[in-house]
Amino acid sequence: MPTPTPAPTPTRFLSEQRLDTGVLEREFTLGEIPGTLWTPESAAPVPLILMAHNNGLPKAQPRLTARARHTAAYGYAVATIDAAGCGDRPRTAEEERSRADLRRAMRAGEPTDDIFESFIGPLVEKAAPEWQAALDAVLSLPGIGGPVGYSGWAALGIRLAVLEPRIAAAGFFAGGYVPLAQREEARRVTVPLLLLLQWDDEGNPRQRALDLFDSFGAQQKTLHANLGGHTGTPWFELEDGNRFFGRHLRR
Amino acid sequence: MPTPTPAPTPTRFLSEQRLDTGVLEREFTLGEIPGTLWTPESAAPVPLILMAHNNGLPKAQPRLTARARHTAAYGYAVATIDAAGCGDRPRTAEEERSRADLRRAMRAGEPTDDIFESFIGPLVEKAAPEWQAALDAVLSLPGIGGPVGYSGWAALGIRLAVLEPRIAAAGFFAGGYVPLAQREEARRVTVPLLLLLQWDDEGNPRQRALDLFDSFGAQQKTLHANLGGHTGTPWFELEDGNRFFGRHLRR
Repeated sequence: MPTPTPAPTPTRFLSEQRLDTGVLEREFTLGEIPGTLWTPESAAPVPLILMAHNNGLPKAQPRLTARARHTAAYGYAVATIDAAGCGDRPRTAEEERSRADLRRAMRAGEPTDDIFESFIGPLVEKAAPEWQAALDAVLSLPGIGGPVGYSGWAALGIRLAVLEPRIAAAGFFAGGYVPLAQREEARRVTVPLLLLLQWDDEGNPRQRALDLFDSFGAQQKTLHANLGGHTGTPWFELEDGNRFFGRHLRR
Repeated sequence: MPTPTPAPTPTRFLSEQRLDTGVLEREFTLGEIPGTLWTPESAAPVPLILMAHNNGLPKAQPRLTARARHTAAYGYAVATIDAAGCGDRPRTAEEERSRADLRRAMRAGEPTDDIFESFIGPLVEKAAPEWQAALDAVLSLPGIGGPVGYSGWAALGIRLAVLEPRIAAAGFFAGGYVPLAQREEARRVTVPLLLLLQWDDEGNPRQRALDLFDSFGAQQKTLHANLGGHTGTPWFELEDGNRFFGRHLRR
């Protein structure tokens, strides 16, 4: 049963460009929420993939943009937003303090788990309803059908997959801090999922990612691990991700 | 530098059948070694994949046959043999005793590592040169080019990848006992590799498979893990395997 949400705020498109691949890339706002929507040239409605960057990094970050463009060219609508506290959105004094604490602790080589917990936990809580609002708005546009996939930031994706019955499959990147609440609710994630892990990710202990994989409640779950550090994911994983969504979103 | 081998024994074809997919399936012998060769319809020479079943199970085992036929239809030549001590080949009294010991220990729920070690260790040692002889013979046939891939039984594959410079990529199934010698020499496996793991494989402790993955010396290595027991590998892993070989054998 869908979570009750208010009537969607109308999407306002600010700019658009047509890419070489035929994909239409549009910047939009939804109330205070800035977003980007990529849509392929297609006569029939296409499935939608929500794509979020780990730990609230900006939606304009080039690795996310490249991934979104590739996925759209493959035949999906792809939407991303900067949710509250993410990307360039204004931050509360407390959020600024947490980020400063985190930078200081990382420089000093001190433990960061408690800071991440106090910082990412609330970020996920506040981001989830905005992503749901974006989902309402984008699904009301012509040419975008269901079902809906989710790709990227594991912590937010777990929260959304638990809240949001429209999400039919999820691809998570095990490369960011997952708050305790989401580690707990991972068992309630029952949609087919693909967890992507970099074997030598500096900031993400391998065992924690393997434990997360183990704890998901999904009957169909797949782990892909590749040698290398945080940003070393091989290009073919992008294709594998598209194929994963192809198995679950194209019925 | 290829390992020196005697001039290949001529391959003698015993029977052939053409499958629906156009694949030609031929039974052959190479001296005492029985084998099966699958070749797709192709004008150009195709890469070769050696496909071996875990722990010396027969080459005629239906899961291996299904996998070989699918892979050949995808555009590869696929060869398998029953090496010494494997499949229906005659066994020494010692091999028979080891197998009887193993069955007894498994029924009694006793530890099996020592029995597996005494049984699989020599099996791999004896099988490897026969697989090399088969490789010589099959590569001398028309329509079969290089490069060569290996797929299946991890222990044998590690041994072959270390011995045999013609092997350019390897897909291993983490579902059988890997002798100490091969766990040691895994660091010398440097070709691109894909390790396939069933997360709940009854007979293959998960941590041992993860340790094996960690120990491979390859710069390009990928782990795929799926929920489920030993024989529960999802069908899409067959396609992922073909695509893995496509990245490394089609230059």
